[in-house]
Amino acid sequence: MAKSKKFITCDGNYAASHIAYMFSEVAAIYPITPSSTMAEYIDEWAAFGRKNIFGQPVKVVEMQSEAGAAGALHGSLQAGALTTTYTASQGLLLMIPNMYKISGELLPGVFHVSARSLAAQALSIFGDHSDVMATRQTGFAMLATSSVQEVMDLAAVAHLAAIKGRVPFLHFFDGFRTSHEIQKIEALDMDELAGLVDQKALQAFRDRALNPEHPVTRGTAQNPDIYFQAREAANSFYDAIPEIVEGYMKELSKLTGREYNLFDYYGDPNAENIVVAMGSVCDTLKEVVDHLNAKGEKVGLINVHLYRPFSIKHFLKAFPKSAKRIAVLDRTKEPGANGDPLYLDIKELFYGKANAPLVVGGRYGLSSKDTTPAQMIAVFENLKMAEPKNQFTVGIVDDVTFKSLPLGPEINLGAKGTFQAKFYGLGSDGTVGANKNSIKIIGDNTEKYAQAYFAYDSKKSGGITVSHLRFGDKPIRSPYLVNTPDFVACHVPSYLGKYDMLKGIRKGGTFLLNSIWDVEETKSKLPNSIKKQLAESEVDFYIINATAIAEEIGLGNRTNTIMQSAFFKIAEVIPSDLAVKSMKKAIDKSFGRKGEDIVKMNYAAVDRGGDVTKIVIPAEWAKLGADESNARQNAPAFISQVVDPINSLKGDDLPVSAFTGREDGTFPAGTTAFEKRGIAVNVPEWISENCIQCNQCSYVCPHAVIRPFLLTEEELKNAPEGTKAVKGNGGIKEYSFKIQISPLDCTGCGNCVDVCPSPKKALVMQPLETQMAEDARWNYMHTKVGYKDTVLDKTKTVKNSQFAQPLFEFSGACAGCGETPYIKAITQLYGDHMMVANATGCSSIYGGSAPATPY
Amino acid sequence: MAKSKKFITCDGNYAASHIAYMFSEVAAIYPITPSSTMAEYIDEWAAFGRKNIFGQPVKVVEMQSEAGAAGALHGSLQAGALTTTYTASQGLLLMIPNMYKISGELLPGVFHVSARSLAAQALSIFGDHSDVMATRQTGFAMLATSSVQEVMDLAAVAHLAAIKGRVPFLHFFDGFRTSHEIQKIEALDMDELAGLVDQKALQAFRDRALNPEHPVTRGTAQNPDIYFQAREAANSFYDAIPEIVEGYMKELSKLTGREYNLFDYYGDPNAENIVVAMGSVCDTLKEVVDHLNAKGEKVGLINVHLYRPFSIKHFLKAFPKSAKRIAVLDRTKEPGANGDPLYLDIKELFYGKANAPLVVGGRYGLSSKDTTPAQMIAVFENLKMAEPKNQFTVGIVDDVTFKSLPLGPEINLGAKGTFQAKFYGLGSDGTVGANKNSIKIIGDNTEKYAQAYFAYDSKKSGGITVSHLRFGDKPIRSPYLVNTPDFVACHVPSYLGKYDMLKGIRKGGTFLLNSIWDVEETKSKLPNSIKKQLAESEVDFYIINATAIAEEIGLGNRTNTIMQSAFFKIAEVIPSDLAVKSMKKAIDKSFGRKGEDIVKMNYAAVDRGGDVTKIVIPAEWAKLGADESNARQNAPAFISQVVDPINSLKGDDLPVSAFTGREDGTFPAGTTAFEKRGIAVNVPEWISENCIQCNQCSYVCPHAVIRPFLLTEEELKNAPEGTKAVKGNGGIKEYSFKIQISPLDCTGCGNCVDVCPSPKKALVMQPLETQMAEDARWNYMHTKVGYKDTVLDKTKTVKNSQFAQPLFEFSGACAGCGETPYIKAITQLYGDHMMVANATGCSSIYGGSAPATPY
Repeated sequence: MAKSKKFITCDGNYAASHIAYMFSEVAAIYPITPSSTMAEYIDEWAAFGRKNIFGQPVKVVEMQSEAGAAGALHGSLQAGALTTTYTASQGLLLMIPNMYKISGELLPGVFHVSARSLAAQALSIFGDHSDVMATRQTGFAMLATSSVQEVMDLAAVAHLAAIKGRVPFLHFFDGFRTSHEIQKIEALDMDELAGLVDQKALQAFRDRALNPEHPVTRGTAQNPDIYFQAREAANSFYDAIPEIVEGYMKELSKLTGREYNLFDYYGDPNAENIVVAMGSVCDTLKEVVDHLNAKGEKVGLINVHLYRPFSIKHFLKAFPKSAKRIAVLDRTKEPGANGDPLYLDIKELFYGKANAPLVVGGRYGLSSKDTTPAQMIAVFENLKMAEPKNQFTVGIVDDVTFKSLPLGPEINLGAKGTFQAKFYGLGSDGTVGANKNSIKIIGDNTEKYAQAYFAYDSKKSGGITVSHLRFGDKPIRSPYLVNTPDFVACHVPSYLGKYDMLKGIRKGGTFLLNSIWDVEETKSKLPNSIKKQLAESEVDFYIINATAIAEEIGLGNRTNTIMQSAFFKIAEVIPSDLAVKSMKKAIDKSFGRKGEDIVKMNYAAVDRGGDVTKIVIPAEWAKLGADESNARQNAPAFISQVVDPINSLKGDDLPVSAFTGREDGTFPAGTTAFEKRGIAVNVPEWISENCIQCNQCSYVCPHAVIRPFLLTEEELKNAPEGTKAVKGNGGIKEYSFKIQISPLDCTGCGNCVDVCPSPKKALVMQPLETQMAEDARWNYMHTKVGYKDTVLDKTKTVKNSQFAQPLFEFSGACAGCGETPYIKAITQLYGDHMMVANATGCSSIYGGSAPATPY
Repeated sequence: MAKSKKFITCDGNYAASHIAYMFSEVAAIYPITPSSTMAEYIDEWAAFGRKNIFGQPVKVVEMQSEAGAAGALHGSLQAGALTTTYTASQGLLLMIPNMYKISGELLPGVFHVSARSLAAQALSIFGDHSDVMATRQTGFAMLATSSVQEVMDLAAVAHLAAIKGRVPFLHFFDGFRTSHEIQKIEALDMDELAGLVDQKALQAFRDRALNPEHPVTRGTAQNPDIYFQAREAANSFYDAIPEIVEGYMKELSKLTGREYNLFDYYGDPNAENIVVAMGSVCDTLKEVVDHLNAKGEKVGLINVHLYRPFSIKHFLKAFPKSAKRIAVLDRTKEPGANGDPLYLDIKELFYGKANAPLVVGGRYGLSSKDTTPAQMIAVFENLKMAEPKNQFTVGIVDDVTFKSLPLGPEINLGAKGTFQAKFYGLGSDGTVGANKNSIKIIGDNTEKYAQAYFAYDSKKSGGITVSHLRFGDKPIRSPYLVNTPDFVACHVPSYLGKYDMLKGIRKGGTFLLNSIWDVEETKSKLPNSIKKQLAESEVDFYIINATAIAEEIGLGNRTNTIMQSAFFKIAEVIPSDLAVKSMKKAIDKSFGRKGEDIVKMNYAAVDRGGDVTKIVIPAEWAKLGADESNARQNAPAFISQVVDPINSLKGDDLPVSAFTGREDGTFPAGTTAFEKRGIAVNVPEWISENCIQCNQCSYVCPHAVIRPFLLTEEELKNAPEGTKAVKGNGGIKEYSFKIQISPLDCTGCGNCVDVCPSPKKALVMQPLETQMAEDARWNYMHTKVGYKDTVLDKTKTVKNSQFAQPLFEFSGACAGCGETPYIKAITQLYGDHMMVANATGCSSIYGGSAPATPY
């Protein structure tokens, strides 16, 4: 009987947690990016009483670190409870000692890992396989999945095989790709999975639990006489794992209708050149394999699911006899090794075999470096060379050690009819939330498949966000950013001159701009590069003044719903009225409890989304020349050569040589001063006559953008025209006093206004545009007037301290951050003698996100 | 100009520390076996003001764990100080996260590692490469040394190359072999080594230090746009390391006259079969290579020094073109991998090469499994097979997965004229100290080379110790236990029936027995097996009653100096009078400050060492049959099949199948009760009439060998004859009260006598022999009378608690241990519901040293 399939729209972390919950009695957790949401889901479901396959909620134990979580997991397993954890990166490293113990004691623990880079020359919260590869020697079985659907389908195999085979499992998928990619997938049913548990093995596990009724000792100290023999005694358990996993994969294949093997071959059965890889890149490779085979090549892919124990027998079963050349891709780097781990395994297994293929290895995608079809085509191109490059890198330009492969242009290999959209927003402006909502609307209301991925920079907020959405009638297997969009939306007018937003847009695509200007003014504001692209690609260009509409209907600066509605209106992915209905339903759900007014305002936002204007593109725009270079003068080379490209989203194009001289991860200090992000909508204006000279505004400012200055008569005279100042009070009577704001560095949090204790506030928030004159004034104060911190003893009062120069400024901390004012105050008091050692956390991110350092 | 060589007698840890001290400004430490003494030496030398090459003492910082030590090391390096640490095993695992950082930031840190096993199915404090192999992906350069002399010669290379090349180094050598093997070696001079420092590189390192004068940020958070490029930027530093190391090795070769290369080839230049290996096994292999080549074979060895970065070019330079077959030996196990790490590297490098050799891999020596010439011969034999076994093990019998190679008999391959001696003693009886002293005497007073290694079991004391000493005119390169001794001494009379002490003794060798009996009685006490060996091997057999002599001259049970003196007397390794003079000199040094009496007593011990008696061996002893089996009846299978062989020092002979059913490291509880070690000289005797029934003796007993029992009239009547008891006081008036001792489990600490508060002591120490009747009585009390712990509320008073059965008994803790009484008391109160999770430390060793568990 054909059962109806149940689809859900979720990311990989959700899928893994969904399955893990079923098979867990205890979850020992300590959340770490990008695995955090797994632990959070489990915790939340447990709190709401969701039942596992034993009809019980999971007992969740949060420990003081990942080392503690691993210890708790070990103990819980020894006590006979099926126990699970979720981690990544450094967190996984802290579990290594216990991993040896857990595998040595043959305990069926399961780790779900959103695989992530390790901190080396820099930390990175993004994805690759460095962390899991650092544990391949621990005796854990390792299972890799390549997509959100595979996570859902195969996560259970880790649990089931661990119980049956007594070897612990580490199930991993790509962090900040599969972990955070939202896909519409088929969900698996607990009842069916529960039936697959080997009850005899489970009972035996229970019976082995430490129990005072039949006491035993485990974890003895063994001496040279017996340790070796005892270590070899477990061999048979490892020998049995491949067949056990294969058995369960067959069961899962039956349940899902999707075929899974330890090694899945995809491509021409008579392929000559094949790639061996693990993780999300396999979906990209499938697209490329189809593309190349359609062009008459004979290529294929082996997708490795069971990486440890590595079964040569099963690999050879998947391997097409016709293959003559293999490229093995590793998503990790082991400096000083002959080659990376998977590559070494493949060479080992073919060594000395008759007609052994040529094998080369390469590295890709470190730290979520987007891995595109063009890169995979380059890998196959390399295999066609007379002497293929070995130990290559792909996806970067290595102009120092010349390991990288040359890349062709990006091409669109998604299924026909797949709609791709890209939205440029500002961190915490609601764009991402609106897009998640859109995906859900489309996923839930249509038969369409949907995919979403949200690219952030690591600024805590106020940074750029780019939402990458795809919709289509076939499953979407493009685990990389949208490079050839059908639709581009810019939610932030100021991005126009900053980012190359139309790069790769398809012919006849659509561009929607939130414009605060009318048609003609908009045209005049467009840089030549945008105009040229609009004309050349025959783009449909729409504008909407979402900023004005939001203001008008009382939503302040919340433009997201208006822009979302405009997207549905223009893109017509689903019928317009269905979209409106669904968006309103979502509003009811989100804001229902906040009162009718709020709901109405948001309803209005949906309704006003139709207020778009189409701008006809003059054909002559195609002939426009380049924009005038806006490269800054006077900036240090590091700023113009490294920082500026990164801030223009062109960091991917930086070659390896950009880091020559800073191979050890050294970055110059104080680079945030060159960012001038201009992200605030409103910034404070100083009302001199109300000011009581307390300096509290300066003290509380999280970004050090408002500072008191003392000016001599001469300095006041030379100040830019219109500079206001007042006579100093108390010990500073000889000087004029002035509060100065740097409008382009301000994030608009308003803390300064809030704290101002003056009976009549000496600060008022004003639109950024109205305060641009302050920028020149700021430069004058900062560079010419300087900081007179010896007039008053800066160590004596909070007020006095603010005349000192902050040596921590313009960080990427959230607007209104409560930590940074303290750091800033310390730098004012002791800054020139400080050495800062910073553990990872908010302060390491806003304090040291490359390329910008606020110190 | 030929300079005079300076020799010292030291172990590998000393040699490493000696060099490390010179190049360290800061040492961040947290001691862990077997690396502890390195940290201790550094600490001690620093305390005494020894100077490094900069004329300063090293600043030593002890942290709260190895994770802290690694963090401190990282910080110290960033602050521009040359920083070093010393660690092993789990300690090294805790440093992994920082290792990625230190290498990523190109800091010249140096780790010296006494490589050790990792805790898996059991912990092991002994040596193999599991720990260092778990760090091979961290980006550290890895340098292996094979002997104490090599440690001395090459440790400096790690420091020098780290400074010049900016890549941190991990220098490792075999834990509990090289680390603890005492050798007479040539010491290197600081001035010569200091001259090798690359001053320019050193200055550059200083200049890069974090400094408020030129502030920078390191350890930023990098995003997908640049992390990959930045990670590849360090490639050139790794590419340069092999040449840098080679350069320094050449310098060291010049200084020492001993040639070193990244890969040292040893053997026939036209070898056909070669072995590739790292660590102390290479010395064993050299012996075997010489032996086989002398027999006409064509074999060789590649000794890997620079393991990471692995230089294929240099490997091929060392590799003889004639070689057709290679066996790669790994001293680690990675369950589920195709093969172990070094093996994978070698296969990689020959893959696809014309005339590529056949390559097989094998595992040996886990957890200090003694690696002998016979094992290495088996490795070469395997290579001669038509189809050599791959993924073999050697040194054990694997009758489960059949990976092991068959072994021939042990043969003596040491240099001609090398004298080998073996001493059986009791933990903390002074035997080991005396032997260390002997080695020093011989090393310092003669031209002879000397080697010593001390094998302990992991009982904290009271266990067996076997000292393995070698002396000879040529450097000694046998990094394995003495298997074919010239001389065997037994310091503990009760070992006679227990251990096969004469196994492998050479024809015409010598056996010295501390015998408390006269000649005829001694003969009657000898088991047939010993008699047979004495006769068959034509052994010179001497006895001395060191026990009686020690008593007589006032040394109590300190027989060590007497036995040492007897050894010098009989063995004549050096002239007898020189030996006497030297021993007395050592006594002056050790005891000079303790007063003339002590010195005189020890002088007397030296003088009385000559009181040996030679026993003529009747030829007919050679024809004696086997001893009656003393296998116990009634003992559980685990005791007779696993525990008894281990306790008879036959654990090495246990096959893998002995651990079937306990592959997860499970050991039955309560097995110490079957040990009956009988190690006490004196044990307490109960004087019933003085007893006040306070039970304090029982409460303080660390080993639970003295317990109060309550007997009914019936039980008293049925007790073994002569059982004394008194009428119970207070709440136990209905019963007779008795204190019972288990003489064979007692360690003789005397705590019970000391604590006894009775005006006239109710306990007195008596020689063990006089108390043997108590053994039967103990069995009666324990099994028939049992524990009446409900007569009085056991939770109410300390006294009452002692009527309960201790569930922690006869542990391997030191005599007089202060921790175990508490554990015991807890088990008496709550023992039947306890689940014990034990961190590593004393309590895990005495609480869980396989095979014996006291719980």
